[in-house]
Amino acid sequence: MPEQDLYEKIVELAKRRGFFWPSYEIYGGVAGFYDLGPLGARLRKKIEQLWREYFIHRHQDIIVEIETPIIGPEIVYKASGHVEHFTDPIVECLKCGRKFRADHLIEEKLGIKTEGLSPEELTRLIREHDIRCPVCGGPLSEVKLFNLLFKTTIGPYSENIGYLRPEAAQGMFVSFRRVYEVMRHRLPLGIAQIGRVARNEISPRQGMIRLREFTIMEFEFFYDPENPWEGLDRYLPRVADTKLRILTAEARQRGEEKPEEYTVEEAIREGVVKVPWMAYWMAVARDFVHALGVPYENMMFEEKLPHERAHYAQQVFDQLVRVSRWGWVEVSGHAYRTDYDLSRHMKYSGHDLTVFRPYEKPKVVRVKRVVVDKAWVGRTYRSEAPRVLELLSRLSPEEVERMLREKGKVVVDGYEIPAEHVKIVEVEEKVSGRRFIPHVVEPSFGSERLLYVTLEYAYTEREGRVVLRLPRRLAPIEVAVFPLTRDERLVSKAREIRDMLVDAGFMVYYDDDGSIGRRYARVDEIGVPAAVTVDYRSLEDDTVTIRDRDTWRQVRTPISRLVDALRRFIYEGARLEELGEPVEQGSG
Amino acid sequence: MPEQDLYEKIVELAKRRGFFWPSYEIYGGVAGFYDLGPLGARLRKKIEQLWREYFIHRHQDIIVEIETPIIGPEIVYKASGHVEHFTDPIVECLKCGRKFRADHLIEEKLGIKTEGLSPEELTRLIREHDIRCPVCGGPLSEVKLFNLLFKTTIGPYSENIGYLRPEAAQGMFVSFRRVYEVMRHRLPLGIAQIGRVARNEISPRQGMIRLREFTIMEFEFFYDPENPWEGLDRYLPRVADTKLRILTAEARQRGEEKPEEYTVEEAIREGVVKVPWMAYWMAVARDFVHALGVPYENMMFEEKLPHERAHYAQQVFDQLVRVSRWGWVEVSGHAYRTDYDLSRHMKYSGHDLTVFRPYEKPKVVRVKRVVVDKAWVGRTYRSEAPRVLELLSRLSPEEVERMLREKGKVVVDGYEIPAEHVKIVEVEEKVSGRRFIPHVVEPSFGSERLLYVTLEYAYTEREGRVVLRLPRRLAPIEVAVFPLTRDERLVSKAREIRDMLVDAGFMVYYDDDGSIGRRYARVDEIGVPAAVTVDYRSLEDDTVTIRDRDTWRQVRTPISRLVDALRRFIYEGARLEELGEPVEQGSG
Repeated sequence: MPEQDLYEKIVELAKRRGFFWPSYEIYGGVAGFYDLGPLGARLRKKIEQLWREYFIHRHQDIIVEIETPIIGPEIVYKASGHVEHFTDPIVECLKCGRKFRADHLIEEKLGIKTEGLSPEELTRLIREHDIRCPVCGGPLSEVKLFNLLFKTTIGPYSENIGYLRPEAAQGMFVSFRRVYEVMRHRLPLGIAQIGRVARNEISPRQGMIRLREFTIMEFEFFYDPENPWEGLDRYLPRVADTKLRILTAEARQRGEEKPEEYTVEEAIREGVVKVPWMAYWMAVARDFVHALGVPYENMMFEEKLPHERAHYAQQVFDQLVRVSRWGWVEVSGHAYRTDYDLSRHMKYSGHDLTVFRPYEKPKVVRVKRVVVDKAWVGRTYRSEAPRVLELLSRLSPEEVERMLREKGKVVVDGYEIPAEHVKIVEVEEKVSGRRFIPHVVEPSFGSERLLYVTLEYAYTEREGRVVLRLPRRLAPIEVAVFPLTRDERLVSKAREIRDMLVDAGFMVYYDDDGSIGRRYARVDEIGVPAAVTVDYRSLEDDTVTIRDRDTWRQVRTPISRLVDALRRFIYEGARLEELGEPVEQGSG
Repeated sequence: MPEQDLYEKIVELAKRRGFFWPSYEIYGGVAGFYDLGPLGARLRKKIEQLWREYFIHRHQDIIVEIETPIIGPEIVYKASGHVEHFTDPIVECLKCGRKFRADHLIEEKLGIKTEGLSPEELTRLIREHDIRCPVCGGPLSEVKLFNLLFKTTIGPYSENIGYLRPEAAQGMFVSFRRVYEVMRHRLPLGIAQIGRVARNEISPRQGMIRLREFTIMEFEFFYDPENPWEGLDRYLPRVADTKLRILTAEARQRGEEKPEEYTVEEAIREGVVKVPWMAYWMAVARDFVHALGVPYENMMFEEKLPHERAHYAQQVFDQLVRVSRWGWVEVSGHAYRTDYDLSRHMKYSGHDLTVFRPYEKPKVVRVKRVVVDKAWVGRTYRSEAPRVLELLSRLSPEEVERMLREKGKVVVDGYEIPAEHVKIVEVEEKVSGRRFIPHVVEPSFGSERLLYVTLEYAYTEREGRVVLRLPRRLAPIEVAVFPLTRDERLVSKAREIRDMLVDAGFMVYYDDDGSIGRRYARVDEIGVPAAVTVDYRSLEDDTVTIRDRDTWRQVRTPISRLVDALRRFIYEGARLEELGEPVEQGSG
């Protein structure tokens, strides 16, 4: 039997111990759907909690979290451009009826890149190279575009089409106005959401990496495009020393594959990242993914080429992490969405989504105004005069000037006003502020991919068995409690300690079955950072041992100080040696 | 203008301050969908956290949480019975084409109950009473059943129908086998899930109370039907004094409307609640909803009548809470689902979902065995002998006995074996255990309804303004920090305190705009339990005042002890007076 690769080892561990497995297994599974088991669900939630900590809690004066529905009416996704643009090329075997991603098929057969090619160009490649059905060898249809939105119907009327959101973003755009009001017109303003999204992939194959349904963690960060640095001064010092490893689009086009390092300020100053806040969020993203256990050197930001970008984006960086089986994999995307989405929703809804920002002091500006001789209009057009004045009021001063220059009179809808009865004057006006559509940068993270990446970077083997070195605060189960033997006195004391730790908020793994070594091995494998053992000395002096998953070293601590010791160890990064007296020992 | 009722007041507050509002407002809204704003999303998560605390954390040795997809393949919902049974009666106006819930229409027009009536019976009522379209007066169609599952397609093949889950439950049933393995064959075993579900209601109208998409918090609790008390002894003492207010189906049929009180043990012993664990979870549910701020007297359990129960349930109690506008509203359902779901999935998937439980010691049982004279069969039937023996082996000892008794011989498929060559013997056999399908009780909570109920019970008015008396630990924003005036020294100290509290994990509302009274009012309205004010004395002695939202009283506390004081106040139920020196004061 060939050795399993790291991916296979993790998948095997995940199934056996309950991190994740394919959904609907008893029905043969459905590609692109995974369940998170008891450990996986807790790990995902802890990753989510850490994300909230990094992005929301620490920026609580500028970012808020909301929840919007997964199902949305058709018009929302017409406005967003997804009905038109959210597609993949598909091709059907004319013999067996199977369907395939046309671009993947061509890339596999010809070993070339196809991104950016049209369906017609893909069809031509298939014809020219006589690419056939990889299953039955039959001829292939023309390439068409397949829309990746899951479609449904809302309510009992079949014409009320709805879609499952492919990103949480549109919920934030559609409710931007309301949130902006609630937040008392604050800018910049981030609106975040963590929730399920669905993308009807044609034939997803990469396990947890490409899912049809997954949890997204993203926020839309709205800012004033004329003040792109606004609010940043308070936060920038936090990432002053952060180096971003960036592979720019320009470098990629030159054939470069290695990223270059930029400080956040350099990336902004040199124009590598177009929006200052975007560079800042990329720095936070780097620190966040590092906190999941990914070393900096296995992480980079890759700028997408124009044809690789989603339809709404003017600049995009994918945050990539190196994984064993697939090489560089995207774990987050950072998109400069400009005012695209708000503008589109303004147009499709007819609602004003601009914001008004008063100037510190009203500005005095010189503006042109059209002055009409109303008495003349009244005398001349009588009952129609109000209509004529209304029509004139719709003309800009520039239009009136042009007509006077070209025709010597103003003509609207057949009504004529001679030059002597209309004039352009310049007046001084106070302008109290500015109305504009905020621009948006969007950091967006895939929760399940991060979970997989976290597991892969935690996976180690020692003395022939698995030790899952998860960052302690991410461990799904925080502490194990073992009586050394099944002696009733030890069992009873161990159970008391378990109850005490549960009351203190810990997730505890209690086990009195089998040798102590086997029990340590069982909890090492699922990443429990600390194992507390009740031994015969515990009965005498009310102390227990705490064993460190990563070093297998132990210390002895009074039970009365155990809760505090474990909190410091798991959440505050204390070293084991700080928790008690070292214990002399044999093997793990 | 007539005075707003409580519901309208809450809806107004919710929109204005950001608890919730109708989704897709700029597109005119879509019935049955609500957004949770910044405050609502935090409140919902805190309710969810409390639910986890009550149901999962405190029962962590018997309940685990998982995550399964919202989208499921058709066969899952055929097996579950939802494709067949999850329907509401619908009627269409033949003139204007509008569609209505037939039962609601009849109930409104005739003031009668229609639950349990078939489409034919509803059609007859419409015809007999000449009920017409409430909008245009047109005639109505026959009543049909409308399926409430949101339907979609998975992948590019149109025949691959999928549904959005109407309950999280099926995810737990389908993956039961896997979770049971991971949990090392533990029973009883609860599998919990918190996540979105979708129900395509025909015309939802009750705001946050009836949504097409909402968050469910539920668990399937699997137990051995022959040991229904198993594991309960450890937990029962926790609810020994709990009184459940129950309105039984039998009492309802007698016309009773008032519940009776039962202790958990009485409810079990008197057979009011059929499954001991179900009664236990109802008691926990009562305490949980009480912790949201609902007094016991505004809460009860109503047993559903047979025709009101879902197709899978053998006994159902709805937990009802009294609300201002709609009277008694269901906030949780407690269903005894028997082995219905697992049995159906066994049948539809062909997978064995039974569990095997070894006896403590193998049992010795006396069993009958058929002993055939193989030599005789061999001599008599020669080449056909193996087939004859195979046929005989399929007969039970009882069948063989019957044939011998009735015919004096055994006949299978035309082959005869005379009585002298076949006999029945009794032997002792060891049986090592039992194979069975676990039974299930399911507590299921609607997250958004609980959010609404929590707001309604927190809503109070004092001196003409709103004070939202949320249980402190549920408050979306935990603490406010105000400089008394805009004096730069106060502002700067207040900001330092804000940063300190944020670092300590608090969600902080900082505000230096307007009079201190107005600022207190703003945070009272959204339920912030504690307001910290930095005044001139703070500059001298590094103390601040803490103001209690509910009493408007204040104490003075050293800044160095503030974090600890606030933790005790918000999470541990400390009284304000325990946090510092009382402050003499005027009005709030």
